[in-house]
Amino acid sequence: MTDTKITLPESDIPTHFYNIAPDLPTPMPPPLHPGTKEPIGPADLAPIFPMGLITQEVSLEPWIEIPDEVRDIYRLYRPTPVFRARALEEFLDTPARIYYKSEHVSPVGSHKLNTALVQAWMNKQEGVKRLATETGAGQWGSALACACRLMGLECMVYMVRVSYDFKPYRRIMMKTYGADIVASPSTLTRAGRHILEGHPDSPGSLGIAISEAIEDAVGRDDTKYALGSVLNHVMLHQTIIGLEAKKQMEMAGDYPDILIACHGGGSNFAGLTFPFLKDKLKGDRKALRAIAAEPSSCPTLTKGPREYDFGDTAGTTPLMMMHTLGHNFIPPPVHAGGLRYHGSAPLVSHLLAAGMIEAEAYDQHTVFESAVQFARCEGTIPAPESAHAVHAAMRQALLARESGEKKTILFNLSGHGIFDMAAYESYLAGKMA
Amino acid sequence: MTDTKITLPESDIPTHFYNIAPDLPTPMPPPLHPGTKEPIGPADLAPIFPMGLITQEVSLEPWIEIPDEVRDIYRLYRPTPVFRARALEEFLDTPARIYYKSEHVSPVGSHKLNTALVQAWMNKQEGVKRLATETGAGQWGSALACACRLMGLECMVYMVRVSYDFKPYRRIMMKTYGADIVASPSTLTRAGRHILEGHPDSPGSLGIAISEAIEDAVGRDDTKYALGSVLNHVMLHQTIIGLEAKKQMEMAGDYPDILIACHGGGSNFAGLTFPFLKDKLKGDRKALRAIAAEPSSCPTLTKGPREYDFGDTAGTTPLMMMHTLGHNFIPPPVHAGGLRYHGSAPLVSHLLAAGMIEAEAYDQHTVFESAVQFARCEGTIPAPESAHAVHAAMRQALLARESGEKKTILFNLSGHGIFDMAAYESYLAGKMA
Repeated sequence: MTDTKITLPESDIPTHFYNIAPDLPTPMPPPLHPGTKEPIGPADLAPIFPMGLITQEVSLEPWIEIPDEVRDIYRLYRPTPVFRARALEEFLDTPARIYYKSEHVSPVGSHKLNTALVQAWMNKQEGVKRLATETGAGQWGSALACACRLMGLECMVYMVRVSYDFKPYRRIMMKTYGADIVASPSTLTRAGRHILEGHPDSPGSLGIAISEAIEDAVGRDDTKYALGSVLNHVMLHQTIIGLEAKKQMEMAGDYPDILIACHGGGSNFAGLTFPFLKDKLKGDRKALRAIAAEPSSCPTLTKGPREYDFGDTAGTTPLMMMHTLGHNFIPPPVHAGGLRYHGSAPLVSHLLAAGMIEAEAYDQHTVFESAVQFARCEGTIPAPESAHAVHAAMRQALLARESGEKKTILFNLSGHGIFDMAAYESYLAGKMA
Repeated sequence: MTDTKITLPESDIPTHFYNIAPDLPTPMPPPLHPGTKEPIGPADLAPIFPMGLITQEVSLEPWIEIPDEVRDIYRLYRPTPVFRARALEEFLDTPARIYYKSEHVSPVGSHKLNTALVQAWMNKQEGVKRLATETGAGQWGSALACACRLMGLECMVYMVRVSYDFKPYRRIMMKTYGADIVASPSTLTRAGRHILEGHPDSPGSLGIAISEAIEDAVGRDDTKYALGSVLNHVMLHQTIIGLEAKKQMEMAGDYPDILIACHGGGSNFAGLTFPFLKDKLKGDRKALRAIAAEPSSCPTLTKGPREYDFGDTAGTTPLMMMHTLGHNFIPPPVHAGGLRYHGSAPLVSHLLAAGMIEAEAYDQHTVFESAVQFARCEGTIPAPESAHAVHAAMRQALLARESGEKKTILFNLSGHGIFDMAAYESYLAGKMA
């Protein structure tokens, strides 16, 4: 192994997030009010989000400043390194150059802290004392619990039942940061009780947990709601990944032919790809490909139509134009819990409709096969979610071997798999479906 | 939080390890043959270690070169950052400056990979195909499993029964890297079977697991033994921690008054402190304090006499002059499994006898209280082992508050606690002894 590690100095932590909205070829269809079905304005979002985030959500400014205090805390783990995976290239015997951005190095183990810190900070500026949120696999819940604690806010997490039961360690991590956690559907909210009446054994879903967290936030003056993906402002915050990676690829004297990230709600995909897609949207890098890797058990982008749908199960969020499997879709309990969401970020969906990006779906077993191989070559064990990106990258590298093309592939290692050893055990024991 | 992060460029990864042996005030008492009780020579160690490591074990050269291939793989996670823990200082309201070196950022989550990579590489140079080792908490086993895989060797791990049962995730991590793991005492070795005859329910101990791994290595031509702590060459490899930290403190324009690391076998303590103790041994920093933090349930340095004892339970290793609780001592099953060892590195024991370092012992509950507080201030959840260093540092910071002294404290965060969530749960639920 002779990996190339591309490290940015701290002074190169970006000062601004990149907002893709003004660069889109056609404007985004507006979100609609869940009752009137009319386009909503910023005021409609005020009960659940602070005005600072609402302003970002609808902004058409291309660059949005990162608060100094947030940049300061980013230094705990940023800039994150980009690695050239030479041992993996050698194993695959490919002419492709494989790079990966290491977002798993954050104290909570994933990229989710990037937006959690901004959201906690902006809420704090407006006097909010407590944030309510949902979490699937627990990556987002851990990130918000950590961010809230570092910023001095309280945190309430509605955790999808199936993850609550099978990922106790994530739950304890959140408790260690001082957050309150309840399994969703819960009896604490009307939305939760409604589901439990019909399905007392419901494994839960992100859609249900979102309904619960929103209801919690709307019902308390001191509380706002925080979402870990899907919305424009979350995509915006995650662009710090791609902005750093772009500088790092420049330092390596290279530029990606193919960008790859896993896709659940869209945030790590958007984060890596948007700053590069800027070039494609301007017409400079017409051949640039960006592939969203999703699980075949929850094939939002590859099988779901693009239409107006709710972000949550109870139908309380604004209607968003997005690829969706339907807000009542409850995906099977797979190990990549963070990819079990019925919808896709409107921005990502818009780019897919415009033919600017692609999507592929893989089955769980194939994905873990690649993940284990990656760990054995590169030393780092990927999260089951990120393993989809690993697999997609390895697949493209093998295609490059067949065609003999020296493709440059850059993927996002959005999280590590240390909390997911039970999933690896199931794979290694030959018990994975 | 306005943490100061002190980052070294990659070009500053040390090129040589620091060997403290030639700088000691008095020579080390030699290890003795377990049968004849006569001093042993390099040839006596040849059945279990490659000659490259034996040469390092007995070397009196002050600087020993780091192989290029090892330095190259170090770049996966090195240089590791030093942080100034300002949020913690503020919480403690102390005039002390608290710094910590972040060894938890390695792909296996601890400093153990530093020596594992060197050991695997040196064995490979001499044609060894397979390494056998023991592991307590699993940190060392994971590190060697990872290093063996990256270097292309096979790996066999004897894992202390109590950790094997209560830390399944560490076991799966080793399997993910392709290692073979068995609970110790096992039926695979004479030493294991002997223990099981007398104590079928034995929780195991590092001493027993070492006996098993050595027996395995001696019995096979393709196999050598690897140890994660205690021996001189392991201390040597870990000095990369202190060598980097010394440069980083220089960059911060500061120098520690007090160095702190947890102590099990001594490797992370030696790693952080030896390069600084060089200054004290030369007479330049006479007031420098180095505190080894150990669990009160296994008080090797604070309660064990310094005498010749075996490194393992079966009495097959050379006799070493060290602080020891007796090679038959089986510590209670506490959460800091990595600190459950009856002995202490001869080099560390020698320095304690010479009055160059100090030791303190703490109870588990107090240690976790500090660990949770650290996580809530600094974002990173410490391993139960490293939490002893966190607690000792916080204690010194509080003493500095009482005395009003602006002490500079540097401790080693040797590992993260993500595998130890069950221990945190037990603490948070008020169920910890």
